[in-house]
Amino acid sequence: MRLTLLGTGAAGGMPLYGCDCVDCRQAQADPGLGRMPCSALLEWGEHRLLLDAGLPDLHRRFAPGSFDGMLLTHFHVDHVQGLFHLRWGPAVPIPVWCPPDPDGCADLLEHSGCLDFRPVMTHGHTWQLHGLSITPLDMVHSRPTLGYLFEYHGRRLAYLTDTKGLPAHTLRLLQGLPSLEVLVIDCSFPPGSAGRNHNSLNEVLELHAGLRPRSTVLTHIGHDLHGWLQRHTLPPGVRAGWDGLSLELCEALA
Amino acid sequence: MRLTLLGTGAAGGMPLYGCDCVDCRQAQADPGLGRMPCSALLEWGEHRLLLDAGLPDLHRRFAPGSFDGMLLTHFHVDHVQGLFHLRWGPAVPIPVWCPPDPDGCADLLEHSGCLDFRPVMTHGHTWQLHGLSITPLDMVHSRPTLGYLFEYHGRRLAYLTDTKGLPAHTLRLLQGLPSLEVLVIDCSFPPGSAGRNHNSLNEVLELHAGLRPRSTVLTHIGHDLHGWLQRHTLPPGVRAGWDGLSLELCEALA
Repeated sequence: MRLTLLGTGAAGGMPLYGCDCVDCRQAQADPGLGRMPCSALLEWGEHRLLLDAGLPDLHRRFAPGSFDGMLLTHFHVDHVQGLFHLRWGPAVPIPVWCPPDPDGCADLLEHSGCLDFRPVMTHGHTWQLHGLSITPLDMVHSRPTLGYLFEYHGRRLAYLTDTKGLPAHTLRLLQGLPSLEVLVIDCSFPPGSAGRNHNSLNEVLELHAGLRPRSTVLTHIGHDLHGWLQRHTLPPGVRAGWDGLSLELCEALA
Repeated sequence: MRLTLLGTGAAGGMPLYGCDCVDCRQAQADPGLGRMPCSALLEWGEHRLLLDAGLPDLHRRFAPGSFDGMLLTHFHVDHVQGLFHLRWGPAVPIPVWCPPDPDGCADLLEHSGCLDFRPVMTHGHTWQLHGLSITPLDMVHSRPTLGYLFEYHGRRLAYLTDTKGLPAHTLRLLQGLPSLEVLVIDCSFPPGSAGRNHNSLNEVLELHAGLRPRSTVLTHIGHDLHGWLQRHTLPPGVRAGWDGLSLELCEALA
């Protein structure tokens, strides 16, 4: 399976609106240096699943029928705003699997158009989609939020955003796995910063040490952390995601 | 003063997501033929005011400080979605004048960031902004909605969307004007179609006959009307707006 990071930015993105720092000015001049809303595309076999839908130009990037459905982590606007436009028109219904959160984004749920919301997932209850195993995992955030463990042909990838730390039962489930290839995880703040709803690098390094994935990739990167990353090095096994980064997990040999 | 239409599309825009008709296919191939969310830029003297904020790339088009504020017609998502991203970051406060509608878009009002919402306008109460007279006008829509009459150096322009018909007291106010140069008005459907919240062309032609502006310009154009306009002619004094159309109102001579 392959995971391509479509967006790796925190809610404010890069460049931050109105910011005059050197990194934001660079990202203003060259959008390729910026960070779009945190989201990704998962591909396996002939299938494709969008993880979150915050890209404002989602309807231009993905024609109807070009993916099998969407998996939402939660209903904060930077993770769902691309859905607003998508629901109009005669497109065939698009499955949108999401956490149960009736107050999440009332306008979307009330006027869902071609979006077929399926808010039925529960922590730890693995389900199958065209041969892919999907296990929802509780996160620690200000809205009901799920991360996801994906398993396909013996490879395991966890996509965990938005979250601050991890609940004990999520940690236990991940530690009980025989192996974890890739951990993509919310890291919004530089070391020493504290946020209520997102990890700083300290917290991520602690999780990396505890879960021991082969590779940890930071996403939902905030503006201050972006600047920090330009001037510091990450420890082995940990790297910063960027918009467009593809992570290929080849099939495990028996 | 000058009004530039930034977007002239109904909520679903052009191309309509998933639509395979000839017009949508053309707009898919050439975005210049499409229609973005209904919005406009008003310029007078050295000043600029955004009318509605539904363009998803608003933060890229308009740097902080490049306009004096925004005037919202109402809180449907296709008129405010560009605000979600804009509110982050260290930008100086941006005045956003809007109808009072506490349930309009809870997430925006609760987490307003640099947006300085001013929901204090009332039908018929004219106020001044840098020499521009602004008169809010009640519309007929599914949310509290205001159209606007702008007066500057003896020229009058009315921007009336989203609405189905006009309330009697709004009609009376407009009919009492000595002159109306330009009427920009919601026209979402072709003749013979009926909508609950938007005008069809029949209804607009009736308003055009009753208000007798020098020029009536259609906006919030739906997909079916867009197709109809490709194959029909409008009566004299009435024309369809398009994204990028600038309407210049020179100063009236004494």
